[in-house]
Amino acid sequence: VFLSQMGWGDLGAFGEPSKETPNLDQMAAEGMLFLDFYSASPLCSPSRAALLTGRLPLRNGFYTTNGHARNAYTPQDIVGGIPDSELLLPELLKKAGYTNKIIGKWHLGHRSQFHPLRHGFDEWFGSPNCHFGPYDNRERPNIPVYRDWDMTGRYYEDFKIDLETGESNLTQLYLQEALDFISKQQASQQPFFLYWAIDATHAPVYASKQFLGTSQRGLYGDAVREIDDSVGKILRHLQQLGISENTFVFFTSDNGAALISAPKQGGSNGPFLCGKQTTFEGGMREPAIAWWPGHIPAGGVSHQLGTVMDLFSTSLSLAGLQPPSDRQIDGIDLLPVILQGKLIDRPIFYYRGNELMAVRAGLYKAHYWTWSNSWEEHGKGIDFCPGQSVAGVTTHTQEEHTHLPLLFHLGRDPGEKYPLSFASEEYQRAVENISELIQQHRASLLPAQPQLNVCDQAVMNWSPPGCEKLGKCLKAPESDPKKCSWPH
Amino acid sequence: VFLSQMGWGDLGAFGEPSKETPNLDQMAAEGMLFLDFYSASPLCSPSRAALLTGRLPLRNGFYTTNGHARNAYTPQDIVGGIPDSELLLPELLKKAGYTNKIIGKWHLGHRSQFHPLRHGFDEWFGSPNCHFGPYDNRERPNIPVYRDWDMTGRYYEDFKIDLETGESNLTQLYLQEALDFISKQQASQQPFFLYWAIDATHAPVYASKQFLGTSQRGLYGDAVREIDDSVGKILRHLQQLGISENTFVFFTSDNGAALISAPKQGGSNGPFLCGKQTTFEGGMREPAIAWWPGHIPAGGVSHQLGTVMDLFSTSLSLAGLQPPSDRQIDGIDLLPVILQGKLIDRPIFYYRGNELMAVRAGLYKAHYWTWSNSWEEHGKGIDFCPGQSVAGVTTHTQEEHTHLPLLFHLGRDPGEKYPLSFASEEYQRAVENISELIQQHRASLLPAQPQLNVCDQAVMNWSPPGCEKLGKCLKAPESDPKKCSWPH
Repeated sequence: VFLSQMGWGDLGAFGEPSKETPNLDQMAAEGMLFLDFYSASPLCSPSRAALLTGRLPLRNGFYTTNGHARNAYTPQDIVGGIPDSELLLPELLKKAGYTNKIIGKWHLGHRSQFHPLRHGFDEWFGSPNCHFGPYDNRERPNIPVYRDWDMTGRYYEDFKIDLETGESNLTQLYLQEALDFISKQQASQQPFFLYWAIDATHAPVYASKQFLGTSQRGLYGDAVREIDDSVGKILRHLQQLGISENTFVFFTSDNGAALISAPKQGGSNGPFLCGKQTTFEGGMREPAIAWWPGHIPAGGVSHQLGTVMDLFSTSLSLAGLQPPSDRQIDGIDLLPVILQGKLIDRPIFYYRGNELMAVRAGLYKAHYWTWSNSWEEHGKGIDFCPGQSVAGVTTHTQEEHTHLPLLFHLGRDPGEKYPLSFASEEYQRAVENISELIQQHRASLLPAQPQLNVCDQAVMNWSPPGCEKLGKCLKAPESDPKKCSWPH
Repeated sequence: VFLSQMGWGDLGAFGEPSKETPNLDQMAAEGMLFLDFYSASPLCSPSRAALLTGRLPLRNGFYTTNGHARNAYTPQDIVGGIPDSELLLPELLKKAGYTNKIIGKWHLGHRSQFHPLRHGFDEWFGSPNCHFGPYDNRERPNIPVYRDWDMTGRYYEDFKIDLETGESNLTQLYLQEALDFISKQQASQQPFFLYWAIDATHAPVYASKQFLGTSQRGLYGDAVREIDDSVGKILRHLQQLGISENTFVFFTSDNGAALISAPKQGGSNGPFLCGKQTTFEGGMREPAIAWWPGHIPAGGVSHQLGTVMDLFSTSLSLAGLQPPSDRQIDGIDLLPVILQGKLIDRPIFYYRGNELMAVRAGLYKAHYWTWSNSWEEHGKGIDFCPGQSVAGVTTHTQEEHTHLPLLFHLGRDPGEKYPLSFASEEYQRAVENISELIQQHRASLLPAQPQLNVCDQAVMNWSPPGCEKLGKCLKAPESDPKKCSWPH
């Protein structure tokens, strides 16, 4: 279960003050809560590419060199996508006989060579890009929804999202699709990998009619309640089919809550600093729950430093497969953590585009670069840290600290508000240790060709496969490739 | 169990990211979690006076008129204290045959007429003031620790607190005292009221040797762990004595975490704005747990708006007593909430000294005055909202909004960062409702004589009762009554 920009603080089990996620809280009570789990990027596409490849965006190409330390993703006019040279988790799982399905947002490129069924998935119901819109189908086409190889309609035309009321039944469609797939796989006794990548918590936030107005938190909370309810139904379905003890389920999110959209369309990062787009804790620390009845001791709590890339390695391990040996994999196998309560020593690298902004080792986090966003964007009302301003930390210019990194102790100071004194012994010791980790990291780092540099209006979803049958083909404008503009 | 400035976000059950409070989390899992529970003041003494009288500080005298909207408490040179005209919870419980004990911090005045044994308590082990120090016993005496009527020693002399290491065994002493009292009462089959008012989480924070260095959160976390462990021992003791089903236990705190002391000596207010001294949520929203096995359904969660004053009315109700009818009581009986899951409609009034700063009704909170602290104090490095700055909200001048209050929706925006538009219908409706509540509130409001206006060095703890036997009497300076200075 992979959420779109749900924040660390959005679940009752993580301290959300409305406590409206009984199913996810129950999942945590029956499974293991990860309190120190991270996305691979403070933005959606790179984080998703990292999850499916087990590799940092800098290695798999999901970054830009258009500017220093800029986040980039896959809007409609992006030319790039997941390179053929990357090995995706479903491609590998196939070798062990798994049937792989993606439900929801793909986000690894929408041109034909990037199609998920070309990269290991057997089935798809969902969209290649964010559900932004509605568009006019002239300047910009509405985003298609695919069933397997072909489009089956477009958002706002065939799949409604009411931007006034926030009503849409998409999560229900995605839920039914998941339940059906699970039933089918159980009936045929086939092992399966289901990547349930729903996006109701991504602006424009939506919920089904039955959930609208049910949350203390407004529309965002309605969406969370529907997702919570859906996860509960999926878990119960597994139990009713008698396969819960054979099914490993993991719940997490692709980046922190988008505070720029709060409070109506954005969630909560709890006690952490800033949100999506930043490499502060609020941008990359994620809610995370592992569930596997009969295997994971109920009520477990882990402080293992984990990342979405670990789900790649852990899934391979569960399938009895080895990770590819011809490339660097950043994920680690979490099974010893989950099943035996081990703690594996490993750092967390916080990248923003092409720059290593910060590193966490143990409870220490060192910032080598700080940046929330530019003064120019900030002046337009774009604020990734609303109500939060830590002098010298939430900077509006890109500030380099490579010679004297800003150091925080995340146990005493989870909110990154009190940098340690440069003169302290504690600072010296921690920074020395982290410097070594960076040297090791860089020694084996081979950045891929950046995939997110070039945009072209001609590559948008004008005529996706299957459009002819539906009479939904649109005329593409002439090709006009440009450097994409990534302001953050 | 009444904590000193523990924050809403300090327990695992409330989302603290280190999750180090297994006993309190277990208490919540077996009992009922209150997510919308408030202190009666953002400062210690007034909140404690309100708990024991069931009345707002403005009614029981625990406020100052030395300046507008200033917090005040009971330092050593305070002349005032709890008036004889106030009826305290233990005085009333006596009528039902209860034996009452206070362990820990009294804080309702230290002169002889304010002694807790004059106000209904039968036993006392603890101190009348905060454990600040060490003092020189010339300019200022060390704070005495009482056993019942007489002092039994002084902090830093007979009861050590090592300010370098943070080591002190005080919580262990207070724990043992609680266990012994409970055993004695159980043996004699006497009903009892135990007010366990510990202060290890109040700066200077301390913990026993066995807990030092055990927390991810530093010394503050060590103190929390020791308190968590102690509460676990008390609850297990009740169970082992077979009286847990006859004993109602409530856990909460007197004000929000003191962010001015963070991160080394202060806790966490989770997602809320600012801390102690302020009437933002971080200053007054408290962790709260009710526990009563066999009566409270396990795992309950309540959104009842509650206050520490409700513990007065609820305790009377549990003892089969009526609240006094000759005075206004602000507390309500929470038993219907706790036992039957009812929700009682009632507002929360946020006072700072003599001023009604804000009012909460349902999920709406209207600020009629805003003030964090003065520019002058802020310039000295005193910051009640470190890293947080919400334009027009966390003001450094006292800002009046009585004609156009700032309105927040605490469901969508628990952090008080996004005021509602003055022009919206939602604003109009909510403010109209709250205005009516204020009118009703003011109609019956009779402020008491302020007790916290006058300070005098002669009234300090120079020669507490029992000092002769210990050879610990000190010579008081001449009386020199002055207006106390309350900068915040």
